[in-house]
Amino acid sequence: MSSRKAVSTKKSADGLSLYLKRQRSLVEAALKRAVPAASVRPSTIHQAMRYSLLAGGKRLRPILVLAAAESCGGEVTQALTAACSVELIHTYSLIHDDLPCMDDDDLRRGRPTSHKAFGEGVAVLAGDALLTQAFGLLSKINPTKRYPLSVYLEETALAAGSLQLIAGQVADLEAEGNSLTISDVRFIHERKTAAMIVLPLRLGAMSANATPSQLKSLTEFGSALGLAFQIIDDILDVTQSSEQLGKSAGKDLTAAKATYPAVIGIEASNKEAARLTRKAHAALKPLGNKGVRLIEIAEYLLGRTC
Amino acid sequence: MSSRKAVSTKKSADGLSLYLKRQRSLVEAALKRAVPAASVRPSTIHQAMRYSLLAGGKRLRPILVLAAAESCGGEVTQALTAACSVELIHTYSLIHDDLPCMDDDDLRRGRPTSHKAFGEGVAVLAGDALLTQAFGLLSKINPTKRYPLSVYLEETALAAGSLQLIAGQVADLEAEGNSLTISDVRFIHERKTAAMIVLPLRLGAMSANATPSQLKSLTEFGSALGLAFQIIDDILDVTQSSEQLGKSAGKDLTAAKATYPAVIGIEASNKEAARLTRKAHAALKPLGNKGVRLIEIAEYLLGRTC
Repeated sequence: MSSRKAVSTKKSADGLSLYLKRQRSLVEAALKRAVPAASVRPSTIHQAMRYSLLAGGKRLRPILVLAAAESCGGEVTQALTAACSVELIHTYSLIHDDLPCMDDDDLRRGRPTSHKAFGEGVAVLAGDALLTQAFGLLSKINPTKRYPLSVYLEETALAAGSLQLIAGQVADLEAEGNSLTISDVRFIHERKTAAMIVLPLRLGAMSANATPSQLKSLTEFGSALGLAFQIIDDILDVTQSSEQLGKSAGKDLTAAKATYPAVIGIEASNKEAARLTRKAHAALKPLGNKGVRLIEIAEYLLGRTC
Repeated sequence: MSSRKAVSTKKSADGLSLYLKRQRSLVEAALKRAVPAASVRPSTIHQAMRYSLLAGGKRLRPILVLAAAESCGGEVTQALTAACSVELIHTYSLIHDDLPCMDDDDLRRGRPTSHKAFGEGVAVLAGDALLTQAFGLLSKINPTKRYPLSVYLEETALAAGSLQLIAGQVADLEAEGNSLTISDVRFIHERKTAAMIVLPLRLGAMSANATPSQLKSLTEFGSALGLAFQIIDDILDVTQSSEQLGKSAGKDLTAAKATYPAVIGIEASNKEAARLTRKAHAALKPLGNKGVRLIEIAEYLLGRTC
């Protein structure tokens, strides 16, 4: 029994790894076309945009767009534009988050951060340009009657705006050095991270013309997964080296930042991440077999070490 | 003859002044509703957004949206959302442009700049949030068959993006201290300023379901007016005090920045602004009487002293 289970888990892990590789290369190719070539004048800004956008990374958010589309019976090709839009927003937020006036990070995805490579002024503008182009890309999606362009636009602006992603960044910035409750940290994580996990799942579902009940399942899945994902990020920051992470490790605790380990410890944080992952699984039950890929992705994220 | 002309000019100036006042109060009221209340958590970001957005200013760009709509036979109310969107983008670009890593300005519209009042981190995020909300607002416009939402979105992202507004900012940043030709300065001004004068005129026309020929007239008007507007800004920076301008004066020449006066002198700059204003007038001829208000605005901008 246990050896059969091991074989099946191994097979599924191989399948997932191939799946992620295939989706990642679709996303990489689309991202290369999503912003102007580095030679376009003024080339500095396009070099800086491409430097951060095409620096590798897990591509988790765009892959979630594609996987969500498939889980609702849709085509990956219909979801690629929204996938790129979400990754552009994610990249812009990293560039601005790394600035000296924010987290002041020198290292991202194993390379110097944008302001280290191009200077602060160009880094601010490269972030601005990626955010702007993320919305520009949305003008190219193929909307359906159930999900017109206005819905994509409204949801994207909400998730990336001052009530969600930016609310999380500001609360995070203000939290530094203060004594926080778990509810404060959760407020920050839900906005800073989970909102931009829920968004890709919803956009992917919308591109597949999902039913309202499918959309609801994916939203609940995303809320739980997003929070779990950030908790694991917090834990890895404490337990892994900078080399393993490709970014400066151990910064969260030294800066007394808003993290789960800092407030409830590592063991309780691990348990909470596992509980949320189970909750995420349960949310996908109504999708049946079509939800398997997303569940595999959730398990992979829980088990990751970098 | 000459006394009649004086009376008619005076009457027209009175009319324009009342018109601008009325449009400005429409815009102010709409802007107050366009971003979350200052009390919404986290309140710092919403305070910072409102601090810069509701700091007065000429409201030139949103008024151009409204006037363009009227010049094509449209209603002001149909154009207000696009007007707000454009002003949010303008305000975001000022906040980021004033940052220490860019123009490093302490004063804007007679008050401390955003980073002076809220710190650099919040200023970066307030700009980001205004840009994001500018696109969020577009989800609320009433598109027509000729001008669907995708066209608003595409044009806004293009004008505000790395090929236009941000291209101008980057080229401006890179120009500092370098010897420039008039064609370099024009490249910067067309992108940094004229693109965000053309956009409001086009969005206003689109909200009125303008004919392609009306749209073309307003685009040509905007290109000429936008360049003239920036040249006059350059001239005022040299000739007026900080108190008169409500922002730090004389910075352009000291920083060897890309300006018309620095490259061709003040007299030739004045002549070029006048030539472009005549060109702007000519572009509006096909609109007949309906273009009069926009011509008055152009004349007012040429004659301004702050």
